[in-house]
Amino acid sequence: MASLGEFDFIGQFLKSQAAQGQPFFDSPLALGIGDDAALVPPLPAGEQMVMATDMLVEGRHYRSDVDPESLGHKVLAVNLSDLAAMGARPVAFTLAAAMRSIDPDWLTAFLKGLFTLARKSQCPLIGGDTVGLNADAPQSFTVTVIGAVPRGKALLRSGLQPGDDLWVSGSLGDAAFAVSRWVPDVKLDWPDPRLALGHRLLGLATAAIDISDGLSAELRHLLAASSTRHSNNLAASLEWQMLPLGPSLRAAVDTQTVTEDRARVFAATGGDEYELLFAAAPSVRDQIAAIGKDLSLTLTRIGCVNTESVASCAIRWSDSQGQPIRAELAAECAQGGFDHFKS
Amino acid sequence: MASLGEFDFIGQFLKSQAAQGQPFFDSPLALGIGDDAALVPPLPAGEQMVMATDMLVEGRHYRSDVDPESLGHKVLAVNLSDLAAMGARPVAFTLAAAMRSIDPDWLTAFLKGLFTLARKSQCPLIGGDTVGLNADAPQSFTVTVIGAVPRGKALLRSGLQPGDDLWVSGSLGDAAFAVSRWVPDVKLDWPDPRLALGHRLLGLATAAIDISDGLSAELRHLLAASSTRHSNNLAASLEWQMLPLGPSLRAAVDTQTVTEDRARVFAATGGDEYELLFAAAPSVRDQIAAIGKDLSLTLTRIGCVNTESVASCAIRWSDSQGQPIRAELAAECAQGGFDHFKS
Repeated sequence: MASLGEFDFIGQFLKSQAAQGQPFFDSPLALGIGDDAALVPPLPAGEQMVMATDMLVEGRHYRSDVDPESLGHKVLAVNLSDLAAMGARPVAFTLAAAMRSIDPDWLTAFLKGLFTLARKSQCPLIGGDTVGLNADAPQSFTVTVIGAVPRGKALLRSGLQPGDDLWVSGSLGDAAFAVSRWVPDVKLDWPDPRLALGHRLLGLATAAIDISDGLSAELRHLLAASSTRHSNNLAASLEWQMLPLGPSLRAAVDTQTVTEDRARVFAATGGDEYELLFAAAPSVRDQIAAIGKDLSLTLTRIGCVNTESVASCAIRWSDSQGQPIRAELAAECAQGGFDHFKS
Repeated sequence: MASLGEFDFIGQFLKSQAAQGQPFFDSPLALGIGDDAALVPPLPAGEQMVMATDMLVEGRHYRSDVDPESLGHKVLAVNLSDLAAMGARPVAFTLAAAMRSIDPDWLTAFLKGLFTLARKSQCPLIGGDTVGLNADAPQSFTVTVIGAVPRGKALLRSGLQPGDDLWVSGSLGDAAFAVSRWVPDVKLDWPDPRLALGHRLLGLATAAIDISDGLSAELRHLLAASSTRHSNNLAASLEWQMLPLGPSLRAAVDTQTVTEDRARVFAATGGDEYELLFAAAPSVRDQIAAIGKDLSLTLTRIGCVNTESVASCAIRWSDSQGQPIRAELAAECAQGGFDHFKS
C-alpha cells in the first residue's frame, strides 16, 4: 500500500477533480482549493445563504470495511439532505478528513463517490483540511455545505400549524432493518438527498426536517420547535398503517420474516433514511400529490398536527379504525432518536 | 464527572451562549443552532463570501492536558487567521465536535474560550454536529468559518509581483520554541488572528498568507502559487537579521540559552504563529508602516520578490552585509512545512 503525502494528496487527487463539471467556477469571483480560504461568487439578489455541517466517524457512523465509494457519497449526501430539509439549493462544500494514512485505491474510490454526487448536485468541493491520525484512531470525514434559498422562505422546523397534514417522502425502515441484520442496503449506503422535493415544497410546506434519527424523533423535534415558537402545545396523530415500509421490510413481512408491527416499528424509529418529513395545510394536498408525481417520488400523508392540552409534543398512533395501537408498540416508537452521549 | 446527553449539551450550553453579543442575530433572516441548517442574512452589496475549515485533533495539534479554554479559543482563532489572510471580515462559523464524553467543567471552559473570541470577532456559532467517541479515540474539533470580503478584492497567494517587498507581522518562532521545550506559550495557546491587519491590507498587499506551518514553507506556497499564475519563476531574497524574533527567543538569546542563529531557524521554520506574511510594492512602504502604527503591531520588511532564472521558488537568505548565510542554516530553513502523511 503506497502512501502519499498531504500536499500530493491535495494536488493530485483533489484540486483538478473538484472543479470538473462545476459551473460554480465559471465565475471570475470563484476560488476553490489552494488558498487560505475559498471565495464564493455572490448569490443572485433575492437569495440568502444556508449552512450545515455533518461528520461521519468510523465505528460510529460506518464500519471500517465500508465501501469507500459509498462513504464518499454518503458524507456529502447527509449534508445535502440538511439543505433539502430547508428547501435550499446546494452551492459548495468543504471537507475535513482525518485519516490514518493515504491509500490511493481507497481514496480514489472515496472521491469517486464524493465527486459523482458533487457533480450531480452542482455542489463543488472548494476547500478543506487533512489531518494524519495515529494507527489506532478512528478516521472521520466532516463536510460543511453552503446552499442558497429565497430570502425568508426557508423551510423551518418551527412552522407547524394545528390542522396541518404530515407527509413523508419515499419509504422508511430499510436502513435500520439492514443495520439490524448487518447487510448492505441502498438506503443506508447510498442515500439520495431529497433536494428537488425540498425545493418544490418552498411556499407550500409549513415545516420540514430530514429523517436522520428516525421519524418519531424527528417529529418530536418539529413539535418542540413549533410549540416553542407558537407558545402552543402541539401534538401529532399518526396512522400506523399509513407508514410507508421500505421494499426490504415489505418483502420480509410478505415472507413472514418479520411481523407487520415489527416492520412498522422499524419505519417509525429507524434512522439513516434521509427522507423528508414535512407538514402542509390540507388545502394543498393536490399540489403535493402532483409534486410527487412529477418527481416520481412517493409522498405519503401519515397523519396530522393538532393542539394538545395535556402533554405537549405527544405523538398518538392509531390504526385504520382510529383505535390506539398497542401500548407496547407506542412505547417502542416513543424511544429512539440517537444520542451520542447517552448509553 | 457528570455526563450530559447530546441534546442537553446543545440546549443548555450552546444555543443561548452562541447568540449573546452577536449582531448577526439582529436580522430577521438569521437563524442559528437548532434547525436542519443555519440561515445567513444576505451580505451587503459589493461583498462576496469567503469560506475556510480547520480541524484540531488531540495528540496531533494539542496535548490531552491542554487548557480547554485556550483550545476553544484556538480552534476558532486558526480559522479566523485564514480569513485574515484573505482580508476578510468574519461572518459566522459551525463547529463539529467529536468527544469521548461530555465533562461539563471541561466543556464550560472550552466554550468560554470559544465564545469570548467569537464575540470579540463578531463571528457567531450558528450550527454544528456532535459525535460521541469510544474511550480510546482522540477528540477532534472542526470549525468551518465564513467571512465576507469586497468582491474581487480578496488577498490571494498568487498575487506576488517581482520587486515586491515581503513583510511579516508581529514576531516569529516563540510557538515552536515553546513546543521544543514542552512549555506553554501565549503564541502557541492563544493565537491572535490578524483580522484588522488583513482588512487594512486590502488594496495594498499583492499577496498574503497566514503562518501556520512556518514562514519558509508559507513563502514557498506564495512563490509557487504566484509563479504558476504568472508563468514566471519567482524567487525570494530574505534578510536573516531582519527576522523578528519572539520575546521568549529574544530572552533565550540574551541569556545565551540558544544561539542567535538557532533562534532565527525557529523564526524561519516554526509553525503555529498565525502571523501574516504579505507582499506589497515598495511604493506603499509608508502606508504599511502607518497601518502597523495604527494597530500597534510590528510590521517588519524581511526581504523582496525577484525573478529567478535558475530555480523557481527558491528562497535566498543573506546576512546584513548581503552575503549568503551558512549553507547548513539555509538547508535547515528549506526543510519544514508540516506534512501529516509523511514521516
